[in-house]
Parts: sequence; C-alpha cells; structure tokens
Amino acid sequence: MKEQLNNHHYAVILAGGSGTRLWPISRELYPKQLLALTGNKTLIQETFLRAESIVPKENIFIVTNKQFTTDILLQLKEYGFVRDQLIIEPSQKNTAPAIALAAQVIEKKDKDALMFVAPADHLIVDAMGFKKSVINAFARAKEGKLITFGITPDNPSTEYGYIKPNKDIIDGEATSVECFVEKPPLEIAEKYIKEGYLWNAGIFVWGVKSFNEELKKYLPEIIHAISLRDKDEEKFVEHFSVISPVSIDVGLLERSREVEVIKVNFGWKDIGSWKSLYELLEKDECGNVLNEHALTIDCENSLVYGNSKRATVAIGITGIVVVDTEDAVLVVRKEETHKIKHAYAELKERNKMQYKEHKTVIRPWGSYTVLEEGLGYKVKKIVVNPHEKLSLQLHHKRSEHWVVIQGTAKATVGENELLYGAHQTVDIPVETVHRLENPTNEILEIIEVQSGVYLGEDDIVRYDDVYARNV
Amino acid sequence: MKEQLNNHHYAVILAGGSGTRLWPISRELYPKQLLALTGNKTLIQETFLRAESIVPKENIFIVTNKQFTTDILLQLKEYGFVRDQLIIEPSQKNTAPAIALAAQVIEKKDKDALMFVAPADHLIVDAMGFKKSVINAFARAKEGKLITFGITPDNPSTEYGYIKPNKDIIDGEATSVECFVEKPPLEIAEKYIKEGYLWNAGIFVWGVKSFNEELKKYLPEIIHAISLRDKDEEKFVEHFSVISPVSIDVGLLERSREVEVIKVNFGWKDIGSWKSLYELLEKDECGNVLNEHALTIDCENSLVYGNSKRATVAIGITGIVVVDTEDAVLVVRKEETHKIKHAYAELKERNKMQYKEHKTVIRPWGSYTVLEEGLGYKVKKIVVNPHEKLSLQLHHKRSEHWVVIQGTAKATVGENELLYGAHQTVDIPVETVHRLENPTNEILEIIEVQSGVYLGEDDIVRYDDVYARNV
Repeated sequence: MKEQLNNHHYAVILAGGSGTRLWPISRELYPKQLLALTGNKTLIQETFLRAESIVPKENIFIVTNKQFTTDILLQLKEYGFVRDQLIIEPSQKNTAPAIALAAQVIEKKDKDALMFVAPADHLIVDAMGFKKSVINAFARAKEGKLITFGITPDNPSTEYGYIKPNKDIIDGEATSVECFVEKPPLEIAEKYIKEGYLWNAGIFVWGVKSFNEELKKYLPEIIHAISLRDKDEEKFVEHFSVISPVSIDVGLLERSREVEVIKVNFGWKDIGSWKSLYELLEKDECGNVLNEHALTIDCENSLVYGNSKRATVAIGITGIVVVDTEDAVLVVRKEETHKIKHAYAELKERNKMQYKEHKTVIRPWGSYTVLEEGLGYKVKKIVVNPHEKLSLQLHHKRSEHWVVIQGTAKATVGENELLYGAHQTVDIPVETVHRLENPTNEILEIIEVQSGVYLGEDDIVRYDDVYARNV
Repeated sequence: MKEQLNNHHYAVILAGGSGTRLWPISRELYPKQLLALTGNKTLIQETFLRAESIVPKENIFIVTNKQFTTDILLQLKEYGFVRDQLIIEPSQKNTAPAIALAAQVIEKKDKDALMFVAPADHLIVDAMGFKKSVINAFARAKEGKLITFGITPDNPSTEYGYIKPNKDIIDGEATSVECFVEKPPLEIAEKYIKEGYLWNAGIFVWGVKSFNEELKKYLPEIIHAISLRDKDEEKFVEHFSVISPVSIDVGLLERSREVEVIKVNFGWKDIGSWKSLYELLEKDECGNVLNEHALTIDCENSLVYGNSKRATVAIGITGIVVVDTEDAVLVVRKEETHKIKHAYAELKERNKMQYKEHKTVIRPWGSYTVLEEGLGYKVKKIVVNPHEKLSLQLHHKRSEHWVVIQGTAKATVGENELLYGAHQTVDIPVETVHRLENPTNEILEIIEVQSGVYLGEDDIVRYDDVYARNV
C-alpha cells in the first residue's frame, strides 16, 4: 500500500501540547512530541511519516505554538516539511480552536478537502492498520459525517477518555455516538470495557465543509476569531486570546448530530506517564528497563535511566522509576507517577529552570549548553553545525569571550572578519555588532564566557538572521 | 573540666581511611572524616577539638596519607594545627603500622609519653564523658597496661566488632580481654549483647614504652621498617610498602598479655552507612530526613538529599535513600546500603571519575570546579581566596585562557605582571611560565578554558609554591 490518496486529502497534526508528565526528559519548551521514547525517531517524526504514507506530503499541516517551531522544523527538515506547513496558534486554547484554525487554512486551499486530525505525541504500533482505518474513515467522511476513532481497549485503562457507541460494532464498522466520557476510576473503567465502550484516541476524520458548518452552529465565537486571521493579524491574536479553551470533543462532537465512531484496532497508546512508558518497553529478566548509563544492583521491576555525564546508581529498589538528566533527577514509585505534575508546578513556583528547558538547547544553527551561571557571568558551550551561522547581533549589557576548542570559526566583530582555529580567543565588547559562523565542513565548538550585569537571552538585537528569527 | 593533662599526654588521630560507604558525598580523595555529617563541623574537626580538650594542642598528631594532607591542614588551620603534627604513611597498611609510626614519633620526643588513639571519622555525642574515660584510662596505662575501650552496646549492631571481657564489669571498670570478634550476623550479635560483650570502638590508651615493647615482641617487621625512617627515607618507604597490612586488634591486642578493656558509655557511633546516618539524624513527621534542596511528595522513612544546582524530586517512596550531587546520584533501599561498595568498585572499573573526587576540588589557595571536559579542552571555574596565590607554573601541553568574572586578578605571564578586573581576559600560551594571584580582600573568580592534546593535572611544572607542593 505505497500509493497515497489524492490531492483532496489532508492531514492535520496537533503538536501544541506541553510536557509535564514525562518530566525530567520532557520540559515546558521540549515536550513529549519532540522526544524519541521507544525508538530512534521522535513521536512527531513518526506521526509525520504515518501521515505521509496516506496523503501527499505537501497536504500535511502541523498546528503548534511559536515556542516549538524551531524544533519541529529541525526534526522534520529531512522529510521535506517546510515552514509554510506550520500553523501557529497565538495562544493555547485546547483542541477545538487549533483544529478550527487548520480547517480554515485547508478550506481556503480546497473547498472539497477531506482531513484527518491526529495528535503528534501518540504511539501507533500498526502503521498499516492505521492507514487502512483512515482510508476507511475518509470514505464515510465523504458522506458528510464527522468521524472519530474508537480504539478497542486491551485493558481497563484509567488514563484515557472513553466513547460509548450507540450499538455494538465490529472492527471497521461505524455508528453514532451515545456519549463521550472522561478518564474514569478503575471500577468504572472495568464496567465500560464490559459494556463495549471504546478508547477516545483524539483522531478524527471529516470534510472541511461539513466540519466548518457544524463549527458555525456550535462554536461561532471560534469561527469569528479565526475569520479575522487574514484581515487583521493583531485583531485575530486579540480575539483568539479571549476564546474560552475547549476540546473538540466537548465543544463540538458531543453536540453535533453528524458524529460517528468507527471501531479501530491498530495498537494505539498515549504515553501518558512513566508508568505507561515502562509497561511499553522491553524488560530484562528482572523486569527492569535500563539504559546503558544506569548502574544497578539487585533492582526489580524498575525503570532506571542514567546520564552519560553523571554516575547514576540504583541498589535494591523495586517498582521505582529513576530518571537522571544533566540537571535533574526524578525518583518516583511507579504507581504514583501521576503526581509528577505537582512537583513540576512546585519547581515552577520555586523558579527552578529545570521545569522549562534542558541544559542543552537546540537552535537552527546547532546547540548551546549552559555549563555554569552565577552573579554577573554565564559559561556556555556552543556547537555550530557545518556551514551554519548565528545571527549578526549585539548585546547592550554583556561582553562575550570565545575560545575555539574544535574546528574553525569565522568571527565578525565590528568591522573585522577573521578566522580562528583551536586555542584562539575572540573578545566581543558590550554594544559591538558580532557574528559567529562555521565556514567549514567540520563541527565548530567554542566555549563562550559572558560577563555583565544582565545575562538574559532577550538582551539581543538581531540585524541579520538566516533563520528569519528577527521577523 | 577545662584543664588539660600535662605535657606527657599525647593524642593520635587516625585519618587515613578512604571513603566508599557514604558515596556519593564521600569520594576516594574526600573521605568521611572530611565531611560534616551531623552538624556544621567535619568529623576530623570534632575529633581534633575533643583531643584538644584533653591534651595540649601541640601534643596531637594525625596519621594520614599524602592525598588528604591539604584538606586536613585546611580544615584544622583555624584551630592552630600545623603541618609538623601530620605523620604521613607512605602506603595504607591498616591500623597497626599507622599507630606504630605515631608511637615512634612520640617516643622520640618523650620516653614517658602516654598516648590515646582515636579514629578521625567516629561520632561521639558525650564529649565530656569521653574526656573522663580517657583520663581514667591514662591512669591504668601508667601501670603498663594497653587499654582498649569497650562501648556499652545499645542495640545488637551488625556493623561493629565486639570485645568479650573476661568478667562482667561496670562502667569505668577494667578487666582483661578474652577475645576480639569481627562484625557478627544479627542472631550472633543478639547473643553477644546478652553475654556482656562490648563494642570495639578502635580507641586505645597506653604508654609508648609499653606499647613499643609489645610491638617488638609481636610485630618486629613493623618495628624494623619504621626504624629506617630517620636513617634512610627511601629504604623506609620501600620496607613499609611490603609490610603485610594488619589491624592493631589482630596484630597485637589479641596476642599481648598486657591488654585490658575498660567499659565506657559516651554515645559513640561509627557512621558506617547511609542507613546508620539516617538513624542518627532528626526526622520529620513522616520519618524523612531531607535537606533544603530536596522536593518530595508523599515520601516516608526516607533520606533525600538534593543539590542546589539541580532539581531533585522524590515521589511516593518508602524506606529509600536518595543522594543527589553535582555529578552523581544514588538511589538505594535503606536495608541494602552495604552494597554501595560494589557499585563503587564498578564505577572505578568503568573509569567513571565520580568514585574518586567531587567536581569541586579544594586547594590551599581556594578551589576549582570542572564545568566541562571533552576531547582537547577542559573548562574550570577557579576561586582564589583573598591574598592567596597559585604556584608559579608552566604547562608543556596546554594553553590556558582566563576570563575574570569577579574580583581582581594579578596575573604573571612570562615577563609581564598585570592586574585584570571583571570581563578582562588573559591568554597563557603553551610552555609559558605563569601565576594567578588574588591581591585583594575580596574573592577572585575566573573561568579557565584549557585547550591542548593532554589536559591531566600532572602536566604542571611548579617553580615556586607558597604551599610547598613542589617539595
């Protein structure tokens, strides 16, 4: 099944979610969809490749917020995904406004478009089964129906919402929906399973015309805000920012009479916690999930992820998750991983930056790692990829000092432009225009020591940026 | 009881032990005696102050090995302890050769000397009771007896060795010893308690003359090696290095007929594991021992030590020890802390430097912290205390680059000697004589970037060192 559906078929990937539940490997600015949890591709890469097997590549749109755009573009660059296919939400308003935004963009291109919507951070084991189900659903959507996928549950999960179909259906069959229900406690979930409820995977298929008609009926406020998008950007942002956040399930699907559920079964999981990730992954003979950096003695049924730069030692623990990163460690009993959100909130409250980003931050030109910061200074290791360059920039409040440790740097400082090799240093005084560039085929690594009274990343004036970050 | 005993009374502190059992806060080069575990003084500081309350300050000797001398001198500087009072073991040979070395040094000063011996890493709650016991023992030692302290046990500990007195004795009473026994399993320990066995604290009191006479009888090999010390340093080191390691208990006390045990009771503990440290420390209402950097939710009966530079989060754990440091984390079930030695050995085997030292290393002039190292470079933060200076030195294989981030540096580079303030940089080429000095009353902080093919601490030629480290 290599052939894709025709040009009228579109895919919308929802990638605006922020990551708290898999902290400390997910961070506010580096959520789950950007992580490779079960293989060597990230969840958004896997989601994109699944979509690409169904619809033409240029018909795939990703809805996200501004903060994740650099990382998404970097991760999907190799698959030919381009900036025009990104749809930026001005603010996070849950799924209904995000999907409505995508439907508007698509309807403007193609009034007869059919679209499927899928979250960027779910795991699907059987990609072929997924493709078949989407194609099947597109056929129903042509009839004007709004289709939602109901996953056949394999256990009474308390981590998912459920859909109650109006009658018992078999795989691939569609029927109307009696109701949508939120994550239940265990006893209720067991009852649901017996009564034929299905998991709500948040995957939807419909024609944009039918969808937008229903949206007008039930969520006119959203339609109004979005209609401003092409007329007046400022007004659009303003109106969007006051929309009440609402999920597509609650805002539309529970109310529309055009909704149907199709029963599907393609090994779907939403990795909602360290516990569910542990359950998914392969275990050793003691029931442990370990990475190569973990040093363990007499542990059982535990997940221990160590870090290459640290020593991570676990001894005699059972049923515990230990996740050690460069700047944080989490130790949690497997059954209590849902409490991570409280710790996350507390870190935010204490202004510990570990809730927000990793020590190493990916940039379009490479990456930087904050090695140390203190009153009046910050030390970074900067890696510039071959033939990439940072913006031409200036800082008002800090001087910078570069020591080249590997490769060759082309440094612009004021009027001068010179090449520097290993062991050479460059001083950039306050208020001096400068640029760092790697003109070679090899990686460039430098140590940067910043000193000054204020060292925030926002003390930067960008004059020229090949990645258009000044626009 | 402020008065000290007269000039014939000496104290010997054994401080050569290396620390594995409290890893990761103890390291091979930073063992337990250098740590403040229960208050704001380190164990060796507390041990020194106890000794100073009993004997004249200048009569206190510390036996240790070369690696710990800088840290011991720094920690005891404020109490007036000086380098001449350090006795350096050429190699680690257990307690008998270490004590023999001290006894020889003392006998040469004073043939009538009485000495007490105490390990540097034990905790004593009742310092006054300790003083009384030592004075009492000095009186028995005058009669030619070799006295060992038998602690009244308060529980059937499996972490201590035991002494069996020849008869039941009361506190302060002495009798001959029937036998010394090693750490027993629990059932045996319970039997020992019932039969009046005492804990062997490794604290001894005797006259140097009597001690040396017994040593000649039972350990002539040690006497011979030590006798070379003043004649031929090289031969001494050579002979000492081939002595069979032996404890004073096994080598001498179990064999001599002059040995007596005095029953004592002054709140003695050897903090031999995280479990025993947990038991000693004050707990919150959930039975937890936490430091201010730990973020915990629903934990019980656990010890969680976080680190100021990191986020350390523990959720839902019971009976677990979590110790997070700048470069390592340990998670261990409290009942299995004795297995840490295996993890320690494994780290050593894997050449992970976390077994050996902390990221921050104390030096006589201040400290340095390795922020990052990689192929061909190393980044350090260096703190120089007021009016201190590093040695005048040269490196054959690396260039160094300094950025002053706080204070004022006086830098000698080749023929030049200049002052540098915050934001200023100094480049030191390979093979160039240089020195860093803090000529002010304020702390000096610099970032040093080293680059070169070899970056070991041993690539250093010292021309002049105020701390005499080139001698």
